[in-house]
Amino acid sequence: MKKIAIIMGSTSDLPVVEKAVDTLKDFGVPYEVRVMSAHRTPEAAREFALKARENGFGAMICAAGMAAHLAGAFAANTTLPVIGIPVKGSTFDGLDALLSTVQMPSGMPVATVAINGAANAALLAIQMLAITDEDLAAKLDAQRKANTEKIYAADEEVRNKY
Amino acid sequence: MKKIAIIMGSTSDLPVVEKAVDTLKDFGVPYEVRVMSAHRTPEAAREFALKARENGFGAMICAAGMAAHLAGAFAANTTLPVIGIPVKGSTFDGLDALLSTVQMPSGMPVATVAINGAANAALLAIQMLAITDEDLAAKLDAQRKANTEKIYAADEEVRNKY
Amino acid sequence: MKKIAIIMGSTSDLPVVEKAVDTLKDFGVPYEVRVMSAHRTPEAAREFALKARENGFGAMICAAGMAAHLAGAFAANTTLPVIGIPVKGSTFDGLDALLSTVQMPSGMPVATVAINGAANAALLAIQMLAITDEDLAAKLDAQRKANTEKIYAADEEVRNKY
Amino acid sequence: MKKIAIIMGSTSDLPVVEKAVDTLKDFGVPYEVRVMSAHRTPEAAREFALKARENGFGAMICAAGMAAHLAGAFAANTTLPVIGIPVKGSTFDGLDALLSTVQMPSGMPVATVAINGAANAALLAIQMLAITDEDLAAKLDAQRKANTEKIYAADEEVRNKY
Amino acid sequence: MKKIAIIMGSTSDLPVVEKAVDTLKDFGVPYEVRVMSAHRTPEAAREFALKARENGFGAMICAAGMAAHLAGAFAANTTLPVIGIPVKGSTFDGLDALLSTVQMPSGMPVATVAINGAANAALLAIQMLAITDEDLAAKLDAQRKANTEKIYAADEEVRNKY
Amino acid sequence: MKKIAIIMGSTSDLPVVEKAVDTLKDFGVPYEVRVMSAHRTPEAAREFALKARENGFGAMICAAGMAAHLAGAFAANTTLPVIGIPVKGSTFDGLDALLSTVQMPSGMPVATVAINGAANAALLAIQMLAITDEDLAAKLDAQRKANTEKIYAADEEVRNKY
Amino acid sequence: MKKIAIIMGSTSDLPVVEKAVDTLKDFGVPYEVRVMSAHRTPEAAREFALKARENGFGAMICAAGMAAHLAGAFAANTTLPVIGIPVKGSTFDGLDALLSTVQMPSGMPVATVAINGAANAALLAIQMLAITDEDLAAKLDAQRKANTEKIYAADEEVRNKY
Amino acid sequence: MKKIAIIMGSTSDLPVVEKAVDTLKDFGVPYEVRVMSAHRTPEAAREFALKARENGFGAMICAAGMAAHLAGAFAANTTLPVIGIPVKGSTFDGLDALLSTVQMPSGMPVATVAINGAANAALLAIQMLAITDEDLAAKLDAQRKANTEKIYAADEEVRNKY
Repeated sequence: MKKIAIIMGSTSDLPVVEKAVDTLKDFGVPYEVRVMSAHRTPEAAREFALKARENGFGAMICAAGMAAHLAGAFAANTTLPVIGIPVKGSTFDGLDALLSTVQMPSGMPVATVAINGAANAALLAIQMLAITDEDLAAKLDAQRKANTEKIYAADEEVRNKY
Repeated sequence: MKKIAIIMGSTSDLPVVEKAVDTLKDFGVPYEVRVMSAHRTPEAAREFALKARENGFGAMICAAGMAAHLAGAFAANTTLPVIGIPVKGSTFDGLDALLSTVQMPSGMPVATVAINGAANAALLAIQMLAITDEDLAAKLDAQRKANTEKIYAADEEVRNKY
Repeated sequence: MKKIAIIMGSTSDLPVVEKAVDTLKDFGVPYEVRVMSAHRTPEAAREFALKARENGFGAMICAAGMAAHLAGAFAANTTLPVIGIPVKGSTFDGLDALLSTVQMPSGMPVATVAINGAANAALLAIQMLAITDEDLAAKLDAQRKANTEKIYAADEEVRNKY
Repeated sequence: MKKIAIIMGSTSDLPVVEKAVDTLKDFGVPYEVRVMSAHRTPEAAREFALKARENGFGAMICAAGMAAHLAGAFAANTTLPVIGIPVKGSTFDGLDALLSTVQMPSGMPVATVAINGAANAALLAIQMLAITDEDLAAKLDAQRKANTEKIYAADEEVRNKY
Repeated sequence: MKKIAIIMGSTSDLPVVEKAVDTLKDFGVPYEVRVMSAHRTPEAAREFALKARENGFGAMICAAGMAAHLAGAFAANTTLPVIGIPVKGSTFDGLDALLSTVQMPSGMPVATVAINGAANAALLAIQMLAITDEDLAAKLDAQRKANTEKIYAADEEVRNKY
Repeated sequence: MKKIAIIMGSTSDLPVVEKAVDTLKDFGVPYEVRVMSAHRTPEAAREFALKARENGFGAMICAAGMAAHLAGAFAANTTLPVIGIPVKGSTFDGLDALLSTVQMPSGMPVATVAINGAANAALLAIQMLAITDEDLAAKLDAQRKANTEKIYAADEEVRNKY
Repeated sequence: MKKIAIIMGSTSDLPVVEKAVDTLKDFGVPYEVRVMSAHRTPEAAREFALKARENGFGAMICAAGMAAHLAGAFAANTTLPVIGIPVKGSTFDGLDALLSTVQMPSGMPVATVAINGAANAALLAIQMLAITDEDLAAKLDAQRKANTEKIYAADEEVRNKY
Repeated sequence: MKKIAIIMGSTSDLPVVEKAVDTLKDFGVPYEVRVMSAHRTPEAAREFALKARENGFGAMICAAGMAAHLAGAFAANTTLPVIGIPVKGSTFDGLDALLSTVQMPSGMPVATVAINGAANAALLAIQMLAITDEDLAAKLDAQRKANTEKIYAADEEVRNKY
């Protein structure tokens, strides 16, 4: 199976990123977690992106805050799908990161998820792999059903309470 | 090859959506263009989403404006990747559509691109198929190189002009 | 008397929603509290909305945060009035939920109240029933007068203090 | 049948408001169109609101821009449901009107629709009357079906074109 | 000397409003502190505004949050200057109150100060009285000089520290 | 009678400012129109502000766009009331000018009106003079009544039309 | 004298950038105008930045819109000062470009000017060179005086007109 | 070596400003820390700015919040580069300070950094001095390399952990 790269711009993004790791682990999808910075280690980021496909990656998840250039910098150096997680920083509620991530120019898409939406970033990566992987697709369906059941149970409980 | 569904909530979104169609055509990726509405034809939308995988689709592109629920409504009924294009409406510069598309709850990702970013939505869908399709990956690389050459040519021209 | 449905997208919205329950209770208006999700239990939501009128409901109150599609999803499947409460989430101060709830396309109104405005959502539902229910209208007037008296008392107290 | 009041703060709001008039006319719901201002004719507005119920009104639609106090001023003087249409002015894309209309304090709900959403405001008023009026409910259902058919037709046309 | 009215929409605004009281007290300007609500006690508010000039008031300070209609409601019923303090509420950082207060239509000015800017609201009221009151103008100048001295002292301290 | 100074930061603000001139003219209030810039002619601005009171001014109206420092710069050098008109520029819909004008620090109030709200700025200045000028107060009341009559006439016309 | 690099991400930014060129020309400061893209020609951008100091550049001006990564990408590869011009695009009034340019992480400053503020970007570059270049400093002072005179002339004209 | 002035509008900005002091200290760049206010000590600010060049300053860093006029006021009185730090206040997440600082009119640039971006402000000042100071340039390069190494180390650690 293709691997998923999870890249954060700074270790301060680790608490956000961990939900992506957990999700990939739950689905048995191989991954690599890295710290690379569009600004502080542009070289390493570029190298990684350029060789990602031949190194067996299927998609990349990039988490960054503020003027979040990380996902865009990776997208510039690979044609693998790049998923961007805008991370909420100390100001602007993540709007700066969201706009820096999603408003990419024509030719360089970044698949953007919600502010701090790391679990969804991982699910999106899994969905991409599942396009041609029936087992993974079945697991996604199973997780959906489990989530649906949880809501049904919550509904039951709330109905009885009120 | 898997097909890509391009779905718009209203025919007023056609001018935006056409860039996605053109891009898929350029890459020789099969597609289907549909008008379905999360609110006006929820039934049809649901049916389409539920059967999309077995009907040979690999990903869905949903374009909608205002309180843009279209992508989310599809995402709720399929585990295929859903790509959302927030369409700029008559007010708020598309911010309403962007937040309605990208701020999805955990478990239901929508891969969001820029406001009116239809070409990128198509490229993202192609990138997803190209994870396991080397020919498509090669075409993406070729397009990248062509774009790079265009910038080099523009650079040359501007340098000479100023 | 018609019942009011109070629906939340997730049990995390319960603390917000409880003020709506309390208000309906105060006015002696029958209600049902449910957990249904536009994305996780779209089927259940649709069934509920389609049969709400024949099941004796007069209006629906839907509380949801982020890309808040809940009210819109109900509005799509009923012609009963749907009242939307945008719930403040962990970012954007509820602006995402407000725009996702209020910016509905033509043909599908959602009666939107303030961020976390659950008490007002319930009052609005009661006002709707009171259009043709004189007793309820009288209760609304009485509550108004009581609130006015509270302000008069507060005014008295503040005038004396300063 | 109860009448619906359509009130605008200034005749400059007429182009927006006319869609509400048209909608009520289509449904055969009686209405009255008025120009009253929370600031310039507060007296008249107050009198109208205080007597609206006994004068046979079932709901009020108030359209205003900028610091849009109109709906709130009516809501303060009646317990009939008040529907607010935030009108887009020469700046801020209607955000000022939206927040001035929707962010009402507890005890004074305003049922807010989208910026310039006059057709939906009228539909919402009709839905309120239709809670206890089966004929009107049937008409709403019929309109829904007609709208659904339009989308199906558009879908057909677009599918054939692409 | 003319009196200044300090009006708040709710006692929850008292902590904000107290700085205005303190400032007026410091300058020996007579004042009255009141709780009146544009929505809950519109009658009282109207009466107060209509008679404010003959009751010896020179200006009014109105503090309110959310869809802050208080200052506008007073401005509608008096030609005395009305000063608006937008109060920060539980969401939107006071932007809703700011826009609801400042974006008044032509003919009905509200002199708006910063979010929670109660001390400045009082100073502005004093400046208005000081247009024709030389003693008050002298006090304002003296306060200015005192504030300037404080900055000079802080500057001295910081220069020595670093 | 005290004079009102109308100051703009650039002649490009003239179309906005002219409504303030017209209003003062209508009320027979003496005024002076000036172009001074907080940044380009800080000296002249400072001199003007420092001597404004002794030169017979009662209040100052400052119109500026973008990072609108004009009103604040005048407020820093006089204790006369300073009224700020945020002017809408080529971007941000005037939000930059609004925040730069209204968010003044404690001790330095600027009485801020709506974006491009020049007529209201003039009315506010007149209201300030009218605190102690009964003739002017009577004129303000007369204008109010005339405006009220206009709304009544518009109401009459609209009622007959629909 | 050190050269100033003017770099745009796309030739569509030329109309904005030309004011920077004109300003540098006016001051006789040598410059080079280039088209380079953080995403489409990351290699070229990186090479240029890495060698800019040894190639005789003193500062770089980068103009880009949307998720404007250009200035940041240059800042990551040089310790010369990088000046960012956020370019207004087809949506969001340039807010996306402003936040993407200014909200740089610690260690990587970008000197950001106003939306489309190309003339100021050039002036800022000239000011940097003028720190150690007295002739240039004198030219800057002269330009300032000329601008001041223009305001004085405008003031004269307006005073006479009104 | 030229000195850098670090100016804050109020001592409450000290915690933000200290990172700028630390950075200049680390690089051995001489500096002066001052408290001056555009509004409370405009005289002192003007004097300082007018004489800054002859007093041996190379650049100025100005930190202020709310309607942050400080940097602009200095820029108006010097042709040295002025760097603005928008300080986050009690509301608006620093957006008011950002727009008040960055949206300067043509002819008066302020080099704006991120909200509370004091370390970057200092680095930018150092970069300006380093244009003609090879030792300083070398120190900047060394710091960059050290930061890069830190990211490499963090990457190593994270790779091993996950």
